[in-house]
Amino acid sequence: MTASQTTRAEQIRSFLRQLNLQAWIAWRPDELLMLSGYFPFWGASLLICFAEAEPVLFVPQLEPRDHIPAGLRVREYPWGDLKCSDPYSELVSAVGGELAKQNVASQQVGVNSSAARTSLPIQAAEQIPMPEDFSGQLSKLTTHPGNQFQIAFADLYLRKTAGEVDAIRRANRVANVGLRAFFENLQAGTPETEIAAAVESAIYLQIGHDGIFHSRGWAMVQSGPNSACAGRFNRSTARRLENGDLVLIELATCVNGYWSDLTRTASVGSAKPEAAEILNLVRDAQQAAVDAVRPGVAAGYIDALARDKITAQGLATFFTHHTGHHVGFRYHDPGFLILPGESSKLEPGMVITLEPGVYIPERGCGARIEDDVLVTESGHEVLSRIEGTEA
Amino acid sequence: MTASQTTRAEQIRSFLRQLNLQAWIAWRPDELLMLSGYFPFWGASLLICFAEAEPVLFVPQLEPRDHIPAGLRVREYPWGDLKCSDPYSELVSAVGGELAKQNVASQQVGVNSSAARTSLPIQAAEQIPMPEDFSGQLSKLTTHPGNQFQIAFADLYLRKTAGEVDAIRRANRVANVGLRAFFENLQAGTPETEIAAAVESAIYLQIGHDGIFHSRGWAMVQSGPNSACAGRFNRSTARRLENGDLVLIELATCVNGYWSDLTRTASVGSAKPEAAEILNLVRDAQQAAVDAVRPGVAAGYIDALARDKITAQGLATFFTHHTGHHVGFRYHDPGFLILPGESSKLEPGMVITLEPGVYIPERGCGARIEDDVLVTESGHEVLSRIEGTEA
Repeated sequence: MTASQTTRAEQIRSFLRQLNLQAWIAWRPDELLMLSGYFPFWGASLLICFAEAEPVLFVPQLEPRDHIPAGLRVREYPWGDLKCSDPYSELVSAVGGELAKQNVASQQVGVNSSAARTSLPIQAAEQIPMPEDFSGQLSKLTTHPGNQFQIAFADLYLRKTAGEVDAIRRANRVANVGLRAFFENLQAGTPETEIAAAVESAIYLQIGHDGIFHSRGWAMVQSGPNSACAGRFNRSTARRLENGDLVLIELATCVNGYWSDLTRTASVGSAKPEAAEILNLVRDAQQAAVDAVRPGVAAGYIDALARDKITAQGLATFFTHHTGHHVGFRYHDPGFLILPGESSKLEPGMVITLEPGVYIPERGCGARIEDDVLVTESGHEVLSRIEGTEA
Repeated sequence: MTASQTTRAEQIRSFLRQLNLQAWIAWRPDELLMLSGYFPFWGASLLICFAEAEPVLFVPQLEPRDHIPAGLRVREYPWGDLKCSDPYSELVSAVGGELAKQNVASQQVGVNSSAARTSLPIQAAEQIPMPEDFSGQLSKLTTHPGNQFQIAFADLYLRKTAGEVDAIRRANRVANVGLRAFFENLQAGTPETEIAAAVESAIYLQIGHDGIFHSRGWAMVQSGPNSACAGRFNRSTARRLENGDLVLIELATCVNGYWSDLTRTASVGSAKPEAAEILNLVRDAQQAAVDAVRPGVAAGYIDALARDKITAQGLATFFTHHTGHHVGFRYHDPGFLILPGESSKLEPGMVITLEPGVYIPERGCGARIEDDVLVTESGHEVLSRIEGTEA
């Protein structure tokens, strides 16, 4: 049985046993999603996973309850109660109580006390509202506050379960609804912003269909000379498309907490020959990388397949970034990158992006194609290609 | 001269002198904006403010350069360079070099080593990408890593300069473009999601006008019985509006880094009498709070004016939250809340929200009206009311 076929609960217990821990405290949105399937609304929820007991989820009293996975033990704490001036102290104290109830000592507790990169909660106009000293408060519950387990913990992100793959597949279906709006709006005279806004609207409108309670896209459209910047940053401007332009869309999509990360590049009418050359080259390079995905292949080998195609055309210096990364619980999951020399090997259940690009300021254009690819037992499945929205 | 008339540079030097510091290191998006006017794209920028020298801004080499304020000294570090495996070590080392160049010792350096609540960078589909141990690395540059200056630092957020007020005024103008789309789409049969998506699109399309390079809205629409949940959380569903519904929109808008936070409640056709009663009551309560805003008034007094109106109708238990908060550098700025018993007093330059609400599940409806209000020398200015988009 491979890792991707075990349940999350088994993987977490195995992780705890390996580190001689009895409990793990998590509070960042993507950790909650990965550990329990719960996508927090406010971002002020906290989960305890036990080696020998069922997990306990603490949620603010304001939290909506209708999307908390069935069977999860839920405790409420007075976040949002006008009469409670320090809900976090009550939370930390209640967490300590649950640990004591299970006879877990502080040397048996692991916690992520860092607030470095994480995905966003549903209420995403602001970061998670943990107070300045929250990680300090949590650290008192453990004798291991130094994040020494973070690398081992990040390993849990790498292999997705079948249910998680389905959720990422759905995020990609929704992203493709957005991409359809992108292709339909590719007309000379249309501003980049208008295309991006149409894509995001199409994604928002998926709420209420197919079991979706949260759907949000971040679309960034760069046309003509702006596309030559797309290897450095992605943002939309009011520039109006012109015939012959290359137009690149970078699209992050979050559906019920699971992420898709896609890029498409297309031309308005016929591309100029020097632009068509790089678009075709990037397509070839990306397809070479996709075709090679299967268990046991090193990430660096996948990178080289794409990079060599571009190098062979003398354009290596214009492919400035990695070929890909893990994706699913975040826009960019933790884990090894698909980049030169990386010896880590692909395994079933991994979901990676493959996204070579070529950006040539002197030609006033750039192109990137990005798909989300699942490593299967025998090869791969491209989760993100749906008819009518391919590059 | 009042605080709001001093320049930011003077306020920062005064802050440093009071704490016997020679330098302050900042890296969270709203801190960079407040200290330098710079809204980071990736969120991986860092600023040193000196008591006796001009500030220095470190940006990733991938960062767009066209919106960095003129006159700011800029250093690049190799974030995004495929050949650099640890850009943050290089950054921390370069920051140390700048401190040494100014003869600043580690006991003279303050730093925010926490990654608690902050606003988002422009690339907002993910939190800022600082690594797990970044705050630990920064802490080595100072003998004061314990965040003991955070409360003093948060005080800098409270009084906005004239230029910052203009930026918040513009964010509110843009938000009102979104609100116009809200009112135009209030028709029976339209899903909440469609209204929210139209509002967000209208806001995105403001990029390229009026000096705007970034404009993003987060619109959450709740209709009929869903509006009764709006005191706990705000989210859109696929529910279609019905005649007589109350419809509430919570709208966060970020324009070039500055934030507006608004709420409107309206009815589809004529509201039912029990719904009209609470909408009128909330309007009265909010107006009473707005009318009283002027320098020297305690926050608790403003809260009481709104709360007493609601209490007088026997509905106090349905007004479950505070009356307001500071706003501008974030969706929710740090600083005192407008809530019962708060003795902190309003001062010129402060920008607060005023947002009483009443939510009655038994009646299947809720209402909230929220505006952003500037405290002026002689009274107040409502920054967020524009004809056609008032409640």
